Amino acid sequence: MGNSFGKIFKLTTFGESHGDAIGGVIEGCPSNVNVDLSFIQSELDRRKPGQSRITTSRKEDDQVTFLSGIFEGKTTGTPIGFIIPNTNSRSKDYSNIKDVYRPSHADYTYEEKYGLRDYRGGGRSSARETACRVVAGAIAKLVLAKYNIDILAYVQSVGDVAMSPKKHDINLLRKASEENMVRCPNAEMAKKMISLIEQVKKKGDTVGGRIFCLINGVPTGLGEPVFDKLHADLGKAMLSINAVKGFEYGSGFDGTRMKGSEHNDVFETKSGKVITQTNYSGGIQGGISNGQQIYFSVAFKPVATILTDQNTIDKSKDNIKIKVQGRHDPCVLPRAVPIVEAMASLVLLDHFLRNKTTKW
Amino acid sequence: MGNSFGKIFKLTTFGESHGDAIGGVIEGCPSNVNVDLSFIQSELDRRKPGQSRITTSRKEDDQVTFLSGIFEGKTTGTPIGFIIPNTNSRSKDYSNIKDVYRPSHADYTYEEKYGLRDYRGGGRSSARETACRVVAGAIAKLVLAKYNIDILAYVQSVGDVAMSPKKHDINLLRKASEENMVRCPNAEMAKKMISLIEQVKKKGDTVGGRIFCLINGVPTGLGEPVFDKLHADLGKAMLSINAVKGFEYGSGFDGTRMKGSEHNDVFETKSGKVITQTNYSGGIQGGISNGQQIYFSVAFKPVATILTDQNTIDKSKDNIKIKVQGRHDPCVLPRAVPIVEAMASLVLLDHFLRNKTTKW
Amino acid sequence: MGNSFGKIFKLTTFGESHGDAIGGVIEGCPSNVNVDLSFIQSELDRRKPGQSRITTSRKEDDQVTFLSGIFEGKTTGTPIGFIIPNTNSRSKDYSNIKDVYRPSHADYTYEEKYGLRDYRGGGRSSARETACRVVAGAIAKLVLAKYNIDILAYVQSVGDVAMSPKKHDINLLRKASEENMVRCPNAEMAKKMISLIEQVKKKGDTVGGRIFCLINGVPTGLGEPVFDKLHADLGKAMLSINAVKGFEYGSGFDGTRMKGSEHNDVFETKSGKVITQTNYSGGIQGGISNGQQIYFSVAFKPVATILTDQNTIDKSKDNIKIKVQGRHDPCVLPRAVPIVEAMASLVLLDHFLRNKTTKW
Amino acid sequence: MGNSFGKIFKLTTFGESHGDAIGGVIEGCPSNVNVDLSFIQSELDRRKPGQSRITTSRKEDDQVTFLSGIFEGKTTGTPIGFIIPNTNSRSKDYSNIKDVYRPSHADYTYEEKYGLRDYRGGGRSSARETACRVVAGAIAKLVLAKYNIDILAYVQSVGDVAMSPKKHDINLLRKASEENMVRCPNAEMAKKMISLIEQVKKKGDTVGGRIFCLINGVPTGLGEPVFDKLHADLGKAMLSINAVKGFEYGSGFDGTRMKGSEHNDVFETKSGKVITQTNYSGGIQGGISNGQQIYFSVAFKPVATILTDQNTIDKSKDNIKIKVQGRHDPCVLPRAVPIVEAMASLVLLDHFLRNKTTKW
Repeated sequence: MGNSFGKIFKLTTFGESHGDAIGGVIEGCPSNVNVDLSFIQSELDRRKPGQSRITTSRKEDDQVTFLSGIFEGKTTGTPIGFIIPNTNSRSKDYSNIKDVYRPSHADYTYEEKYGLRDYRGGGRSSARETACRVVAGAIAKLVLAKYNIDILAYVQSVGDVAMSPKKHDINLLRKASEENMVRCPNAEMAKKMISLIEQVKKKGDTVGGRIFCLINGVPTGLGEPVFDKLHADLGKAMLSINAVKGFEYGSGFDGTRMKGSEHNDVFETKSGKVITQTNYSGGIQGGISNGQQIYFSVAFKPVATILTDQNTIDKSKDNIKIKVQGRHDPCVLPRAVPIVEAMASLVLLDHFLRNKTTKW
Repeated sequence: MGNSFGKIFKLTTFGESHGDAIGGVIEGCPSNVNVDLSFIQSELDRRKPGQSRITTSRKEDDQVTFLSGIFEGKTTGTPIGFIIPNTNSRSKDYSNIKDVYRPSHADYTYEEKYGLRDYRGGGRSSARETACRVVAGAIAKLVLAKYNIDILAYVQSVGDVAMSPKKHDINLLRKASEENMVRCPNAEMAKKMISLIEQVKKKGDTVGGRIFCLINGVPTGLGEPVFDKLHADLGKAMLSINAVKGFEYGSGFDGTRMKGSEHNDVFETKSGKVITQTNYSGGIQGGISNGQQIYFSVAFKPVATILTDQNTIDKSKDNIKIKVQGRHDPCVLPRAVPIVEAMASLVLLDHFLRNKTTKW
Repeated sequence: MGNSFGKIFKLTTFGESHGDAIGGVIEGCPSNVNVDLSFIQSELDRRKPGQSRITTSRKEDDQVTFLSGIFEGKTTGTPIGFIIPNTNSRSKDYSNIKDVYRPSHADYTYEEKYGLRDYRGGGRSSARETACRVVAGAIAKLVLAKYNIDILAYVQSVGDVAMSPKKHDINLLRKASEENMVRCPNAEMAKKMISLIEQVKKKGDTVGGRIFCLINGVPTGLGEPVFDKLHADLGKAMLSINAVKGFEYGSGFDGTRMKGSEHNDVFETKSGKVITQTNYSGGIQGGISNGQQIYFSVAFKPVATILTDQNTIDKSKDNIKIKVQGRHDPCVLPRAVPIVEAMASLVLLDHFLRNKTTKW
Repeated sequence: MGNSFGKIFKLTTFGESHGDAIGGVIEGCPSNVNVDLSFIQSELDRRKPGQSRITTSRKEDDQVTFLSGIFEGKTTGTPIGFIIPNTNSRSKDYSNIKDVYRPSHADYTYEEKYGLRDYRGGGRSSARETACRVVAGAIAKLVLAKYNIDILAYVQSVGDVAMSPKKHDINLLRKASEENMVRCPNAEMAKKMISLIEQVKKKGDTVGGRIFCLINGVPTGLGEPVFDKLHADLGKAMLSINAVKGFEYGSGFDGTRMKGSEHNDVFETKSGKVITQTNYSGGIQGGISNGQQIYFSVAFKPVATILTDQNTIDKSKDNIKIKVQGRHDPCVLPRAVPIVEAMASLVLLDHFLRNKTTKW
């Protein structure tokens, strides 16, 4: 059941990092949407390995092939099937971990759940699966753009190096964050982050961080009152990304220390439009968008694949020492930015479509 | 679509705070479970208004009536329908807010979404809906208890008053937290929290805080690899509770500042059982439970209903001043503890049942 | 999972025939629909027991109480919870069948599936559950009527007494079929059917028959290409009604004996509207409505509760003789007419709403 | 939403007849199932075009490629993605129908629904999509075979040529029906059917018929009481197959003419096993399997693609004459046999897995 996301605009993914291909099926995309293939590829390129010296040196082109649902450049309303071939998988890198449970990986839990596992590259638990989310997210972005809904994520912190979140101007922030390899819009902080990642990489270690996400132009009315609150679905979307440990929106954890009289966002009318003077609500009230900017923050742990000696156990439950090899990311944050945007896009478009049947 | 939670063990709720009753339907509960009605009622009592001087003075008995699915004291495997009558709703308290959008409430967003709203007591957005979750959660707890899965939540902070989270002994923590009206297991901090809430209440103001939740006894293998990661479903469950602004599990936001070499949980075998030396993973790896303790933290904002003058707008978009009246909670944390436990129970039992079809 | 029907306009039902009440939750009803309570009750009255001398003599008022989702006479867009109290259940009638598996009832299969059963009145397998479908169907009809979608079912045959299906004029057919207690629009045949049912009843026996259903005014475009073809969902809807053994639409089983050259419905334009010269397609092509009249036929077996001696087995698997008592229908067809209409309404409205997100 | 089938064992398909490939994703297949690739291919071969002189002369190898979910010959519990390349699609055959609505095809309804269509070969409405169902059904059969659940379909009638349905011996029936190209187990009737199809083909016409399906070895307890009755899901499964117009199970439409006293299936115990003396119930009572043989019948209309002149309209709504060309089946029945079996397998396995969580 857990391989699909969304109720109307729905993505189902399949694939392991070391099979022939990964892929997905997108259902519920409205017909007649122009599909800009180069935009989709450019989104994949933002996620792809090997894009800079602070990501894994593994290189994969991540070329998507669409198999259905698009005809003469437009969506047909039928399911969009696509695959991304696995071109650069070195399965032999993994033969030494076949019988070993790497610390803080999914090796042990998969084996406990399924009784066997595809040990090559983490199998289904590999973050490679998220490339499919980027494809679907890119298509969702194309639809959302028609309604001027604009989503931007950027790296807010790496380890202890953190900028205070900026919320506008979204275009300037986009430009600034894509100008450096760590995708942080604060140039000075970006330098420090890159330097920290390089240090960490040298030691074969990894480091975590936070991604901040802004959504502008969301109309009022998206989200549902009870279980499918807009922020609950955004939260689930983010927590479903590999290595994510936390999610907060609006005032978030800091809001727990506030008084209601400070936290309440006072409504007022400005040029005929309803706005709020502050936005601790993060653009969502009672689970439903109120037309203000939506913003949230996502916590990523340091990835588990480190290149130093570690103690662990093997399938016979014996204590052993391992030293993992391969080509891995010292910090996933820069490559996770487009994934955060993609998952946010899926949630937004799904709720946008769901909302079409609400009011008579 | 958004009125149901769960895929196999599924709760659907209905009801506004000021109709005849709220209620729900529980599907997928296995047959032959002994239904301990007094336990279910005791869980409702932990959530009910008017239980202490730091909660709302509104009194509702919150008596649940089961209409189906239980026969001669046991579940029959068919849907369990139940209602909780609304006995103490004073609708006239709300006539003055009929045409007003209260700051940081759902008034404005509901009206934008649906074109009309039941303005009495917040209608469907009222936290009264969560009583139904407590009923379903109590039944889930009865099933989970058979497998020694044990869930405890407690108040970790109110405003700036915070204890450092304790993770064992779960029974002592339970005893200690239920001994005071704020449900914090640290007696000293509990006193300070109560005193803070009383101060805030006196001013007609409100305050937020954090709830910490522990789950012991979860077998390995619960959760799914990709979108329905166990922590993603826990996160959505928590974020769907009124006033929640954030969720983190395991190392959470603090984990973003760690190195992989610090964060990795080393496996070892202890008396034939696989354990991890540390538990930054929070009992979940690759989205699947690894048999260690699951723990997470939930951020609650200060509730929006304050009893002081506030600026806002009305339906004609005119600026006005309002002073909300009624009987409200200065701090929802104490009453939210059983809701957090209930939602965690729903997630755990649903994944427990889902996992039954996984391995051949 | 199997207690809900529909994807956007969704009904979930609960309740056994001998608990306090049966009931349901309707999700996805658009807001702002005027709820005509007397119409809903009149639909329930068409289904209620004791309405004529050819139905069961059991009398139940079947009064529906709405608990939520309706405010000041209009739907609010939130779930509509409702209950129908069980007022005239004589549980003692069933004590003698507690340990017996009645032939062709669900006694044996429920006990095999769940390990126990509510033996009073068939428990969840009682056709009483369909009253909830009639409530939801009535609300769906109110919405569909705004779009001039009009649904009529009538009794086409009882045992060997059959009229050839008439497809228009729908208003005349409605009037004629509601004029007699068997709900057959052919007055002469109606008399024969009533006489047959009376004979059968005298012997404590039962008899089956066919219901024919017409749907006018369906716009083009409802239904989905592959699994959720409009007729597949109508078929499932009908086959989910108690005692139904078959479903055919358009040319149906007779169509298997035709040639393509006879069966193809030729398109033509008439006053600017696309129509087909014949309608063997039954208004649905490739699973999607083509704007022509939809029609189908539903087969009901004779109900299993007969009042004569029967051989069977008990829980100890011993052969025994039973003589069932109680108040039962000699023929369910007249009371099944509103159920067929209700289920058709649920399918149509669900697909109507689903279709709103299809085209850009 | 309508591109998936099943709730736990779930197939999602994608693809048009003239894109690069069709394909699907199978979720919920238990781990550790041995995947017999040659069996899967042999099932596809039973469906493939060009297999005999009474099917279309179009030849496609229909070679399935699995992309994920299988590792070292076993299922891993993760989604099984697969594609079937479209190797022999002559798109130019369809250029003349680009702007034409062929009678009784999906051309008009697709265009009305989506505002555009992939006109090559019917696009998504092509029966080519069913090849994906055969792949998933074959995997389901492999799982069901472990539990001795055995499914057989055969051609019971073509046009007016009909055999009376035989229900055993299932192995002899299988052998007999696979011995001739029309897949009818009655050799004499098979000859007549083949001769009829050849006549029809010569005239460029088509003919319909019925497929009969038997399922042996189903344990008690599969199916759910209300909406997801086992026969309701089988009915939907069958009605979702291209060209199907009707479904009946057990006594079916004939049962409408019976009395309850004739129709009731008397239980008895035979060598310690509960059986019924007759089986008008078709192995399903109250929507749940009772351990007896399940059987049903499926009506197929004559396919709409005929090679003679026909009147119709074009996109401008002008009346025109068309003569369709291409390579088409004069009768789909022989190739539909494995599709009926596949869809039955999907339903059975899904309910088998669903039932695993029912009883405590």
